[in-house]
Amino acid sequence: MELWYTEKIDDGGGLTIKIKNHLFHRQTKYQTIDIFDTFLYGRLMVIDGVVMLTEKDEYVYHECLTHVPIQLLDNPERVLIIGGGDGGAAREVLKYPYVREVVMVEIDGEVIEASKRFFPTLAIAFKDKRLKTFIADGAQYVKDEKKSFDLIIIDSTDPVGPGEVLFTEDFYRDSNRILKKSGIFTAQTESPFDEDRKEIIRNIYKNLGSIYRHTRMYLASIPTYPFGLWSFAFASQEVDPLSFEIKATFLPDNLKYYNRKIGKSIFTLPNFAEELINM
Amino acid sequence: MELWYTEKIDDGGGLTIKIKNHLFHRQTKYQTIDIFDTFLYGRLMVIDGVVMLTEKDEYVYHECLTHVPIQLLDNPERVLIIGGGDGGAAREVLKYPYVREVVMVEIDGEVIEASKRFFPTLAIAFKDKRLKTFIADGAQYVKDEKKSFDLIIIDSTDPVGPGEVLFTEDFYRDSNRILKKSGIFTAQTESPFDEDRKEIIRNIYKNLGSIYRHTRMYLASIPTYPFGLWSFAFASQEVDPLSFEIKATFLPDNLKYYNRKIGKSIFTLPNFAEELINM
Repeated sequence: MELWYTEKIDDGGGLTIKIKNHLFHRQTKYQTIDIFDTFLYGRLMVIDGVVMLTEKDEYVYHECLTHVPIQLLDNPERVLIIGGGDGGAAREVLKYPYVREVVMVEIDGEVIEASKRFFPTLAIAFKDKRLKTFIADGAQYVKDEKKSFDLIIIDSTDPVGPGEVLFTEDFYRDSNRILKKSGIFTAQTESPFDEDRKEIIRNIYKNLGSIYRHTRMYLASIPTYPFGLWSFAFASQEVDPLSFEIKATFLPDNLKYYNRKIGKSIFTLPNFAEELINM
Repeated sequence: MELWYTEKIDDGGGLTIKIKNHLFHRQTKYQTIDIFDTFLYGRLMVIDGVVMLTEKDEYVYHECLTHVPIQLLDNPERVLIIGGGDGGAAREVLKYPYVREVVMVEIDGEVIEASKRFFPTLAIAFKDKRLKTFIADGAQYVKDEKKSFDLIIIDSTDPVGPGEVLFTEDFYRDSNRILKKSGIFTAQTESPFDEDRKEIIRNIYKNLGSIYRHTRMYLASIPTYPFGLWSFAFASQEVDPLSFEIKATFLPDNLKYYNRKIGKSIFTLPNFAEELINM
């Protein structure tokens, strides 16, 4: 028997992955989590029928979501991650010795449990005492939080379903309130090739632009995400990403995607992506 | 009835595309050509079961294969295209008013005929009198040719099957012989994410490096190619791509991917790709 996982995008195309084993299936309070072992990509986590990560290429997403902003910060100490229950973003942030506290607010504790059980290379983050985990609603958390952060990372699901609230102007205003002026806000913002999400993406950048002085999209190639190209938002009151000023005094070894030249070139957009956010 | 075209990569994953109509099927002397109309990508050309191009995203491949080298050249007049029978690469090259002659050597005339019939936005190139088309073996052509070129573009199929000879050291030496010292050689060189083609890619760059003073990989995101990320080789005796010196006095309007900032950042490689060509 051959088992294939197929994820359709915009109902006209998609990615198909040959499965060794279906390791885990759980309907949680918020979503459905599936974990597969695959031939080409190692283990695969799927939430609500959408690829979240694979062992083989998760490094691109997690390195770009974290090192791109961190390298432009002056030794950040406090980092907030909304979502990111798999642990991958926290793992990267915790590579910096001067990061003293990472607060992770994940709405679905079962994502964390599944990661601990099936993705040891990501869940290694949960062994670090600097990581404080809250099983809570990220939107509510940023409304209520009093302390401020050097870096806020939105490692969410798509802007449809439980993740939707994390793409609203209200959420952006609340998170800006607890972000230091010298800090950076970063978020995953879908594929710029996705015609069906053009309006959503445009609104994200319009809303961020109404709050932050500097707002910029950056891009990275992720084979198992729709269209193979993913976008991230960078927003800050004081840090202009196009100044390309590396302020970090440390760069982790053994990164597979990020280097400081990439950290600069990643902000250069092809014309179609530039038009997408500037129209 | 739903019809889906599925292209498997390394037998463990792949791309699947929903088909409106199967417009054309032909077994030629060299290969099998199929043309489909699709919902997501417009018309799709498949050769020997491998996506060659779609109307929707062909611009990425063709713009990067051509404008990246041309913008670093001092107004090239003579351009050689090996392969490229769909016309896309020629269309881009012919946008430059100072290009006086484009020689296309396509082994399979039926690719050209199919493009003329089904891909008018690409086949527009064949209406330009500066384009000279030869239905011939590209490897033999570069062995026999006497005149020299400012730019040689290898727009081939994969390094398995009829295209294989276009990835050999002999072919690289023969093409170097008819390339001006100030000229540039460029070629498509597969996906750097493709573990099964690591050795092939490494050999391409090793062989080019033994012939050319400057050899460099560059990358672009093509949703319908395996892993969504594609590599191109840049080779030259005199033009260092990392000098980023724009010598072109003209840049075509209405490009969808290429701009001069991209023409620079495109040479910045993620660590995994840098390691692939330098190990």
